[in-house]
Amino acid sequence: MKGIPIEDLEIGDKASFSKTLSETDVYLFAGITGDFNPAHVNEIEARGSIFEGRVAHGMLVAGFLSTVVGMQLPGPGSILVRQELKFLSPVRIGDTVTAEVEVLEIHLRRNMVILGAIIKNQDCRKVIQGKAVVKPPLKCSVE
Amino acid sequence: MKGIPIEDLEIGDKASFSKTLSETDVYLFAGITGDFNPAHVNEIEARGSIFEGRVAHGMLVAGFLSTVVGMQLPGPGSILVRQELKFLSPVRIGDTVTAEVEVLEIHLRRNMVILGAIIKNQDCRKVIQGKAVVKPPLKCSVE
Amino acid sequence: MKGIPIEDLEIGDKASFSKTLSETDVYLFAGITGDFNPAHVNEIEARGSIFEGRVAHGMLVAGFLSTVVGMQLPGPGSILVRQELKFLSPVRIGDTVTAEVEVLEIHLRRNMVILGAIIKNQDCRKVIQGKAVVKPPLKCSVE
Amino acid sequence: MKGIPIEDLEIGDKASFSKTLSETDVYLFAGITGDFNPAHVNEIEARGSIFEGRVAHGMLVAGFLSTVVGMQLPGPGSILVRQELKFLSPVRIGDTVTAEVEVLEIHLRRNMVILGAIIKNQDCRKVIQGKAVVKPPLKCSVE
Repeated sequence: MKGIPIEDLEIGDKASFSKTLSETDVYLFAGITGDFNPAHVNEIEARGSIFEGRVAHGMLVAGFLSTVVGMQLPGPGSILVRQELKFLSPVRIGDTVTAEVEVLEIHLRRNMVILGAIIKNQDCRKVIQGKAVVKPPLKCSVE
Repeated sequence: MKGIPIEDLEIGDKASFSKTLSETDVYLFAGITGDFNPAHVNEIEARGSIFEGRVAHGMLVAGFLSTVVGMQLPGPGSILVRQELKFLSPVRIGDTVTAEVEVLEIHLRRNMVILGAIIKNQDCRKVIQGKAVVKPPLKCSVE
Repeated sequence: MKGIPIEDLEIGDKASFSKTLSETDVYLFAGITGDFNPAHVNEIEARGSIFEGRVAHGMLVAGFLSTVVGMQLPGPGSILVRQELKFLSPVRIGDTVTAEVEVLEIHLRRNMVILGAIIKNQDCRKVIQGKAVVKPPLKCSVE
Repeated sequence: MKGIPIEDLEIGDKASFSKTLSETDVYLFAGITGDFNPAHVNEIEARGSIFEGRVAHGMLVAGFLSTVVGMQLPGPGSILVRQELKFLSPVRIGDTVTAEVEVLEIHLRRNMVILGAIIKNQDCRKVIQGKAVVKPPLKCSVE
């Protein structure tokens, strides 16, 4: 597994990843991070909130962006340098989200690319939007 | 469980959360997000990388910030609006990280606070630094 | 993270923790403990039982009491010494339980507190009731 | 899978279950219950404590008793009614514990047995000791 070096990237290149968010995803993420906010793990309280039910952790959903970056564009060997995200809508348990990443800028000399990032739900509603600065893997490791 | 409304927050308020990152955390996060980048789950390849071993997903570690926000400051009922993060150093399996959040700005009229965020490892090295815009829970829900 | 020393505790102090029990919780607990009693993991058999469906392990639910003790009252640094529990009603997958702990007795000289413990479900039905003897964290560790 | 009805139990009957406690067990239990006490998940802080390292949650270890009860003695169909436990020694990650249960009293008319319970570590040190009141499964379900 080896990602795409900066020389082989072009502005406009895109990649995406989709998944239906399960209760298991949300509960395991709570278990990893310690974030047991009732909005995520208490259905009774969450039903009374503006979200009308349990929602996924924003950082869980944002994690799908790093999935696209780390697995596809630029892929294995990439290093995430910086990230800005806006959380626009909640993701409910059972929602299907698609994270899409697009190459916006290529800075060859510094080996850095700027990626646009959008995550939408099954109704094409934007749930997260942002940018990431990423170092693609180097072309070759000379031996 | 109810978080702190904006009226009760003060600039300089701080809260933190600490955890030793386990291999289990990294593998479950990979399983949730689908980010099976060899840097995280392939010890052989990771040993040959500049990190000299498997490292945690940046977004997993960043998740501890939302733990502090969602559980403590401002706590349950908070809504994460925006987030900017710089990934400064890798976190290895077995590292102990501490995520600290501090109130930097309070915008009473818009019910928004700006939080500074720093995650350090056991050697006090900064691994992630950034800011978050958060809506604290409202003081009361009038019926 | 540091809990409350005995000097700062008062009779009547309370703390609680709530969570909706998921199938994931029950299955992971079965996987950790090896308790694959059909009442917990066999829906077909469990439907024919007096509980009419799979129920959570009593010890899983009882674990929420140690969450309150270890995280809040008295919190980090506390040592659980003894515990007596009555299991009054089953907790079904999907039930939302609230574990509440209250300081009943303070034994300053022996650095021990007796806590009353109640876990209720979303219908305010008691599912577990009991007591715990706990040593709060010491006020300071003199060097 | 069907447990032993009270008519077939004898005073002195024993059963046991053994397992080496892994870091994964402790982290998953923290993730299920929300008990992220540093004694369990922060190696740096735990090293400085009297336990000199991370220890398992007492309730996780106690869970092995319900494994013996629910799987073997009396086995599937048993209902845990009451439990008293003393926590005598910590269990470290990597320790191998054996939970043993023994029939102490048989109350035929009320369909209840009293079980003695001991959990030891690999050095035969008692870590938990206690009693449980259990209702064995009924002999037959007449149709």
